[in-house]
Amino acid sequence: DMQKKIAVILGDGIGPEVTQQSIKVLDAVARQFKHQFFYEHCLMGASAIDKTGDALPGETLQICHRSDAVLLGAIGHPRYDNDPSAKVRPEDGLLKLRKELGLFANIRPITTYAPLQHLSPLKSSRIEGVDFVIFRELTGGIYFGNKQLNEDKTEASDDCIYHRDEIVRIAHLAFAYAQQRRKVLTLVDKANVLETSRLWRKVVQEMSTQYPDVTVNYLFVDNAAMQIIINPKQFDVILTENMFGDILSDEASVITGSIGLLPSASVGNKLALFEPIHGSYPQAAGKNIANPNGSILSAAMMLDYFGLAEEAELIREAVHWNLANGFLTKDIDSINNYSTATIGDLVSDYV
Amino acid sequence: DMQKKIAVILGDGIGPEVTQQSIKVLDAVARQFKHQFFYEHCLMGASAIDKTGDALPGETLQICHRSDAVLLGAIGHPRYDNDPSAKVRPEDGLLKLRKELGLFANIRPITTYAPLQHLSPLKSSRIEGVDFVIFRELTGGIYFGNKQLNEDKTEASDDCIYHRDEIVRIAHLAFAYAQQRRKVLTLVDKANVLETSRLWRKVVQEMSTQYPDVTVNYLFVDNAAMQIIINPKQFDVILTENMFGDILSDEASVITGSIGLLPSASVGNKLALFEPIHGSYPQAAGKNIANPNGSILSAAMMLDYFGLAEEAELIREAVHWNLANGFLTKDIDSINNYSTATIGDLVSDYV
Ligand SMILES: CC(C)[C@H](C(=O)O)[C@@H](O)C(=O)O
Ligand SMILES: CC(C)[C@H](C(=O)O)[C@@H](O)C(=O)O
Repeated sequence: DMQKKIAVILGDGIGPEVTQQSIKVLDAVARQFKHQFFYEHCLMGASAIDKTGDALPGETLQICHRSDAVLLGAIGHPRYDNDPSAKVRPEDGLLKLRKELGLFANIRPITTYAPLQHLSPLKSSRIEGVDFVIFRELTGGIYFGNKQLNEDKTEASDDCIYHRDEIVRIAHLAFAYAQQRRKVLTLVDKANVLETSRLWRKVVQEMSTQYPDVTVNYLFVDNAAMQIIINPKQFDVILTENMFGDILSDEASVITGSIGLLPSASVGNKLALFEPIHGSYPQAAGKNIANPNGSILSAAMMLDYFGLAEEAELIREAVHWNLANGFLTKDIDSINNYSTATIGDLVSDYV
Repeated sequence: DMQKKIAVILGDGIGPEVTQQSIKVLDAVARQFKHQFFYEHCLMGASAIDKTGDALPGETLQICHRSDAVLLGAIGHPRYDNDPSAKVRPEDGLLKLRKELGLFANIRPITTYAPLQHLSPLKSSRIEGVDFVIFRELTGGIYFGNKQLNEDKTEASDDCIYHRDEIVRIAHLAFAYAQQRRKVLTLVDKANVLETSRLWRKVVQEMSTQYPDVTVNYLFVDNAAMQIIINPKQFDVILTENMFGDILSDEASVITGSIGLLPSASVGNKLALFEPIHGSYPQAAGKNIANPNGSILSAAMMLDYFGLAEEAELIREAVHWNLANGFLTKDIDSINNYSTATIGDLVSDYV
C-alpha cells in the first residue's frame, strides 16, 4: 500500500487518449495491490501555448515539483514546426521541464517483440533477440549551451559544453545498469573531432576501473549509426551525450518495427518523467486508433521506479499477452484491429 | 585529349591497394580516350605521422593545391583511436586538408545494386530502387568551431557556428543537383532546438524561391535518422550540416548493403577530392581482398567533375557488369571471390 503523487501532462495530439489508458491501467494496479495514486493534471506544449501563451506554465512546474513522478503523453504540433522565427515553441516547454526538474538521464529500452518482427524494416535475422538500452544525457550539451544570432542575422551559433560531473552522474547509472544485464557498456562519441567527446571518453575510461566486471567499448557516432542497423544484437547498454542520443535513440527505435510500443524514462535525483517515445501524431488525434502500449509500458517503468517490480512485470505480461493473441491497434494490424480504449481495458482486466 | 594533374594520397590500411586499382582504371581511360593524367603522390594520415610526425605535411598541401583533383584512399589507424589525449591524430590531417582546400560540400550518392540486395540489413522491399544523394556541409559547424578544455580539465566545449554564406554556397549546389534529378530537396536540421539550424532553415526557405521547380521538405535530424531506415525511397537530395551529415551519410550507406562500393566527392570552388566512403580497415590491409569498387567509382565521379561524362559512365558500366556477372570481392561473396587487383584488371579491360 504505497501512496504516490503523479503529475499528468496529457499534451498534444494523441497524447491525451494514450495517457488515459495508462491511468486506467495504473488504477487497476492500485485496486489490485492496494496502492493509492493521486493524479494532478497540468499543461505543456502546443495546448499550453494555446491556453496560456506559455509552453510550460509556472503552475505545471509547481505541480511536477511536488509530485513523485510525471506521466507525459506527447507534445508538438505541426503548426509550430516550419516557422524558424516562432517566438514560442512547444518543444521549449519540454526542454525547460527537463532542465528545471534535473532529468539528466533519458533511458530507452530497445526491445523487439516476436509477433511484430514482420513490421521491422530490418531482416528478421538481424533483429531477433535485440535487447539493449540507451542512456542519453538529457540536460547538457548543445541543447542547453549558449545560442546566438548576430544582429544582422547572418551568423548563428550553438555551444556544446560538458562538465565532468554531468558525465559522471549518468555514467554511474549506465554502469550500474550494465552490471544488472549483460555487462557491456558502449560509449558513443566523436572523440576524433570533439573536445567534449574526448572528455566523455576520458571520464568513462577512468570510471571503468570502478566497474571491473563491465566491458567498455568505444564507438564513434557515425560508426554507431551504422552498427545499430548492421548488428544491433551487439549492444547491451549504450551511453551517449544529448544530441547523439537524440538521433541514435530514434534510429534504434525504428529497427524494432514497433515504435508505438516503446517507453522511456527521464530520471533525475528527485523525480522522474515517463513517456512513450512516439510523437503527438496529430493526424490520428481523437480517432481512438493510437497505440497506447508505449504509454502503458512507460507507466510500467514508473512502477519499477517506485520499486513496484511485481506490478510492473504484470503490466508487461499483459501487453505481451495482447500482442501474442492478436489484440493489436491499427498501426500494427490495419485489418483486424482494436481501439485505443479497448487495449487499455484489456490490459486493465488482465491486471 | 584532356590533361589533368591528380594528387594521390594512398593513405592507411587498405587505402593503397584500392587506390592502385583506380589508377589502373584511370590509365585505361587515358589510353582509350587519349587523355593524360599526371599523378603526384603525397602523404596523409597515420602513415604521414609515422614518416613525418605530421598528419598533413606541408608538401602534401602544396601538391594538392597545384592539382586539379585529389584521389584519396582511406586514412586512420586504431592505434590512434582510443587515446583521448593523443597529440596528433590521423583525422586532423583530413580535417585540415578539407579546410585548407575549401572542400565545403561532401557529396555521397546512395545507390542500391540489385545483385547485392541480399546483403542489405533492410528488407528488399524497402531498398529496391533507392537512389538519393546527400550533400553534407564539410568545412563548418561544430567540426571547426572553437574547442576548449579548461585548465583543470573538468569542462570541455565545442562551438557550432554557421554563417549564411556557408549555407548559401552548398545549398545552391544541392538545389541545382535536385533540378537535374527528381526535384525534391530535403533539408535536415534540428530547428526546434538549435539556432544554427534555424538559420539553415531560414536561408534555404529564402533560396527556394529561386528554384520554383524544386519541392523543399524539412525534417528534424532525429526523424531523418528514422526515415532513412523506414522509407529511404522518399529521398532525392538531402542537404544538411557537417555533424548531422557525418552521422546520416554513414547510416544511409549501410542500408544499401554495399558499403564497399560507395564513392564520394568533396568539392570546393577550385578543386575536389574523391574517396571511397569505407574506412582504412587495417585488418584487411595488404591481403589483396579489399573491394576496390568504392575507389573506382570515386574515380568515375572525378571524371564527371572533369566533364568526362562518357568516360565516367563507361567505368560505372564496367562495375555493374562485374557485379551482375559474379566478379565479386570477398566482402560480398565469401566463397567464390576475386582479388582486389583482379577486379581492377577487369574494369580496366572492360574500358
Ligand atoms: C522535441 C525535441 C526537443 C526532443 C529532443 O530533441 O530532445 C525530442 O526529439 C525527444 O527526443 O524527446
Ligand atoms: C575521420 C573523421 C574525422 C571523418 C569525419 O567525421 O568527417 C569521417 O568520419 C568522414 O565522414 O569522412
